[in-house]
Amino acid sequence: MSFASHLEKTTHSTASSIGHAPAAVPAQRGEVVVSLALRHAGTRIVTLRYEVCGDAELPAVFVAGGISANRHVGSSEAFADAGWWEAQVGAGRALDPRRHRLVAFDWLGSDGSLDAVIDPADQADAIACVLDALRIERLEAFVGCSYGAMVALQFAARHRARLNHVVAISGAHRAHPFSSAWRALQRRAVALGALQCDESHGLALARQLAILSYRTPEEFAERFDAAQVVDGRVRVAAEDYLDHCGAQYTARTSPLAFQRLSESIDLQSVAPECIDVPVTVVAVQEDRLVPIADSLDLAQRVRGPTRVQVLRSLFGHDAFLKEEAAIAAVLNHALNHTLQPAATSHSPIAIEAAA
Amino acid sequence: MSFASHLEKTTHSTASSIGHAPAAVPAQRGEVVVSLALRHAGTRIVTLRYEVCGDAELPAVFVAGGISANRHVGSSEAFADAGWWEAQVGAGRALDPRRHRLVAFDWLGSDGSLDAVIDPADQADAIACVLDALRIERLEAFVGCSYGAMVALQFAARHRARLNHVVAISGAHRAHPFSSAWRALQRRAVALGALQCDESHGLALARQLAILSYRTPEEFAERFDAAQVVDGRVRVAAEDYLDHCGAQYTARTSPLAFQRLSESIDLQSVAPECIDVPVTVVAVQEDRLVPIADSLDLAQRVRGPTRVQVLRSLFGHDAFLKEEAAIAAVLNHALNHTLQPAATSHSPIAIEAAA
Repeated sequence: MSFASHLEKTTHSTASSIGHAPAAVPAQRGEVVVSLALRHAGTRIVTLRYEVCGDAELPAVFVAGGISANRHVGSSEAFADAGWWEAQVGAGRALDPRRHRLVAFDWLGSDGSLDAVIDPADQADAIACVLDALRIERLEAFVGCSYGAMVALQFAARHRARLNHVVAISGAHRAHPFSSAWRALQRRAVALGALQCDESHGLALARQLAILSYRTPEEFAERFDAAQVVDGRVRVAAEDYLDHCGAQYTARTSPLAFQRLSESIDLQSVAPECIDVPVTVVAVQEDRLVPIADSLDLAQRVRGPTRVQVLRSLFGHDAFLKEEAAIAAVLNHALNHTLQPAATSHSPIAIEAAA
Repeated sequence: MSFASHLEKTTHSTASSIGHAPAAVPAQRGEVVVSLALRHAGTRIVTLRYEVCGDAELPAVFVAGGISANRHVGSSEAFADAGWWEAQVGAGRALDPRRHRLVAFDWLGSDGSLDAVIDPADQADAIACVLDALRIERLEAFVGCSYGAMVALQFAARHRARLNHVVAISGAHRAHPFSSAWRALQRRAVALGALQCDESHGLALARQLAILSYRTPEEFAERFDAAQVVDGRVRVAAEDYLDHCGAQYTARTSPLAFQRLSESIDLQSVAPECIDVPVTVVAVQEDRLVPIADSLDLAQRVRGPTRVQVLRSLFGHDAFLKEEAAIAAVLNHALNHTLQPAATSHSPIAIEAAA
């Protein structure tokens, strides 16, 4: 694959000079234009936008979140806005740019300019292009959450020589058929809105439906009370919250990007037997989108050494965003303890309850 | 309340003369026009449509299902179409019109002519009007499933002198806040369709969303495989099934009726402490719409004697329609064993696993 690269902004200051700002570390954004062979849609010229934080000499860790996440994982001096995983990124945190060079990118398709079927395997290949552009031969780890975990597994299967360790949080080797049905109906909501050129209305409904899959009945029972009659209609207690979720999402998301990335989740299909790098599998017992049985199946079938950590969380699939201390502990453990090769490929899986 | 009544059709033959037809029993349909004080929408003149099957001398059992059910519970000589609970109704079945006089009605609002907030308590009062019209003073039992169970509890709280026993299957004293959120989004799908004068499209989506709440991930995992790429789009394996569910539902359901009955579920609120008739609570462990914790809470708080039966089912909330043998056993037990008053109102609940 050919590529052209452009650096948007670079800072190489290393002194920590500003009051409460994070210790200054080099951070850079850039983009690379590559010709990428998509699995279902032919070869396309695409622009990949990345962000890197940490010295080039440090071991590199690729970080990827859900389909709504982006290249800005955590704030830095150069890019001071809060990142989507702010609680885990920064000096003294689990993903510390003074110890690792953190790399992330905007998902292929996330800018809404690619109206094509996008396979999670395509994302893995795109990430390999980003690493080429950055001259990173090998990742110390690929930390992925949700869709990012799916792509991490694809990367491990397709670019085995380029990474030492996968940390797959709340994502598995397949999309569960029930979760796929749930997402298909979200896409239908967007399509229904599009029929009347009101895509944002449809996208808001899709997001609200997605929220129900990310969270748990237990959380809603704690937060929300009984329905009320308002102006001749029944309004349930969660509707204000759901309105907020919908409005916030439509303000920053292209309906086409949502459609294509939502579809992409449903194409996830990696044979775990093709993965022979060490894998840390993090599963949440209350996750209604990625049933824990799928995570355990993944862990049992991968060929590399495996560690399974099971969390309990009222927040279900969103635990990776909400259970800050438990996720920090998982990440610290995963990045500081080398997984030993298993005695045999069929040795029992050690399941650890996370702190 | 005043009422006028009209009998649509009556048969009083008692001989079983036709090959495999059910033993002939009297069956009749009728309607009664009443003035009904709605809890949230003032007094309205409404038409209530009922069906009765079984001799007038037999003890009466009122039968009610989900919001999509109607007065035709099971087939008879007079009304030969299959009813919505055909497996449970008929000679030799759990609900046997040779042993009980079975009464059912079309939900208030189900014909789409009542554009008002309908409380489950209104349904209970409407049922009392139907019983008045039929000169039924007292029910041997009120067997309700899903929304029908909610209404049965309302009937017990509001018309205590008119029934001996409630059988509440997969329905509780409150709507769970998470399930309410799920239904609110279904109503938003109908509203989104209505904005573009395509209510049936919106209603189909709402029904498909409802189906996901009625069933379980475990069933989908057994039935459906991986997604496929079809004509440049991802199509998940459950979409054919969901299309079928949507089309079937929109062919027979008024969008307004769906909106108002769906809302009604979310208004369910009965203090269990106000119920002092015997109650059989039937809960399904896999039910994602009516969490078993709510059913157990109900059983612990009612003042009358209580029996709890817990089923396991791959079909979740739809178990009352799908687990024919287990539900038949539950009904046979409930209708043939008198519940003894508890020693105290706080005695421990005996939980029985159903066959």
